[in-house]
Amino acid sequence: MARPIIFGEIEGFEEGYLFKDRKEMMPNSFHRVWSRGIDSDKDEGASAVVLSGEYKDEDNADAIIYTGAGGRDKKGKQIKDQDWFHNDNIGLMLSCDLGKPVRVIIGHKHKSPLSPKSGYVYAGLYYVDSYWNKIETFDDKEFKMCKFKLIYIGNNKNRSTPEQIQLDHSIRDKKRVQNTVMRLVRDSQISLKVKELYDFKCQVCGIAIETKSGFYAEGAHIKALGKPHNGDDSLSNLICLCPNHHVMFDKGVFSIMDNYELIGVEKGQLTVDDKHKIDKDNLKYHRSCHGYN
Amino acid sequence: MARPIIFGEIEGFEEGYLFKDRKEMMPNSFHRVWSRGIDSDKDEGASAVVLSGEYKDEDNADAIIYTGAGGRDKKGKQIKDQDWFHNDNIGLMLSCDLGKPVRVIIGHKHKSPLSPKSGYVYAGLYYVDSYWNKIETFDDKEFKMCKFKLIYIGNNKNRSTPEQIQLDHSIRDKKRVQNTVMRLVRDSQISLKVKELYDFKCQVCGIAIETKSGFYAEGAHIKALGKPHNGDDSLSNLICLCPNHHVMFDKGVFSIMDNYELIGVEKGQLTVDDKHKIDKDNLKYHRSCHGYN
Repeated sequence: MARPIIFGEIEGFEEGYLFKDRKEMMPNSFHRVWSRGIDSDKDEGASAVVLSGEYKDEDNADAIIYTGAGGRDKKGKQIKDQDWFHNDNIGLMLSCDLGKPVRVIIGHKHKSPLSPKSGYVYAGLYYVDSYWNKIETFDDKEFKMCKFKLIYIGNNKNRSTPEQIQLDHSIRDKKRVQNTVMRLVRDSQISLKVKELYDFKCQVCGIAIETKSGFYAEGAHIKALGKPHNGDDSLSNLICLCPNHHVMFDKGVFSIMDNYELIGVEKGQLTVDDKHKIDKDNLKYHRSCHGYN
Repeated sequence: MARPIIFGEIEGFEEGYLFKDRKEMMPNSFHRVWSRGIDSDKDEGASAVVLSGEYKDEDNADAIIYTGAGGRDKKGKQIKDQDWFHNDNIGLMLSCDLGKPVRVIIGHKHKSPLSPKSGYVYAGLYYVDSYWNKIETFDDKEFKMCKFKLIYIGNNKNRSTPEQIQLDHSIRDKKRVQNTVMRLVRDSQISLKVKELYDFKCQVCGIAIETKSGFYAEGAHIKALGKPHNGDDSLSNLICLCPNHHVMFDKGVFSIMDNYELIGVEKGQLTVDDKHKIDKDNLKYHRSCHGYN
């Protein structure tokens, strides 16, 4: 009988706590599964992940690109694509959608500034920002892998970045709430251009959100900004969407073909103005990230 | 003929620049209007505001509650309500919706840690986070005032807060983009409860946003969190909305009567579960903030 899953901090195990081995994490439900990277419940979410050094997980101390589970044989060799129906991947997707925090544990074999010399260190709480597919090569064979971007939400100020100063200061008025999910829409002056081109109407459904002073829409980047995608903040990488379709597009439940036909849970055609030159490579990248290829 | 409006930084006038008087701000379009607090274009937005000390504007160095324009006689006495159709208020609303930056200038008569001993100081760039109505008393008479929350987005790190560490680190990968609007959805574990109660269906339109792992909705606070509203993070202050209706509710283009009838651009009835006890005072507060009373 499995122990119940526990989300968030566990008393007695502060950030920086050193475990001699993975077995030690089990009795307290810090990470309940000896042999797996992800401690997950397919109905509740994933509560903890281990960066063991087996996959090429990227790690900048404050943001991690984590590789999901599946597709390996008993010796640990990648022999198949990973898929989103694997319980452990479902767990991490749920933690993203529900805003549940994930404990990140880093092993000595993983190469990172945070790695311990031996054993496993608790690197703090993270939230799951996004997930997508990426093709990676193992022994000259290409496999579709499941990737998750984890963002540090712990208390260590030295691991935050100066660029955060432009963000919502209203948070200062609240005690820090663990288990908080955030959807941050960054809307540049360039995205204003794409919104004006479409009169703030969503290119998928045609809705324009009314406000007291006019209309509201969001500029959605086709190839996401920031690491690891590094999309451009340019008109050829932007579309005008309502918030609902922006969420759906970012989560990849629909994508766009080169002829602007919609694919996935949305059917029909993206409305595209003749003056709006969308870079087809960006559309291809979005499809590839979300399994439409 | 008015000079054209200029948004963002103006060369030669860095944050902290001291103006001897307001006249000095006009030739360079730093603030084009000698006699008014808000420099505004009703089609483009507001580019600059002066905190002169005439209204009770609140100021925490990193966030300002600014009072809009209108309702005063020639001697500066408040004799009428302010309204959202005043060009200067439209300008600030537009800057909010379009994510345009606002230069904040603080005069010596305004009481603030940032105030200069004489003249006017440029306190940096801010973005307009939100706007609402508030009843205030002048000479024993109550008037409806237009309020705007301005958030500091300048470069001075000493004016940012430690609580920002939980926010999206992906911004570090980009050069700082001036003129960025942000919509930050903070979703606590308590809001997860309200979403589960409604199976992630919007209480206004019934839509549930599909994702690969289930459904996505947002917990919307009826009385906003944080200063100056100080709403609770509790079930009696939360409703489950799709992102589109969350934006519309926060911007006050609809509100909710005590019998859950919708008022404003949305018609019909809020779906409310018998187990969900919404605090009517919070509904009243939301209506009052957005002029439905």
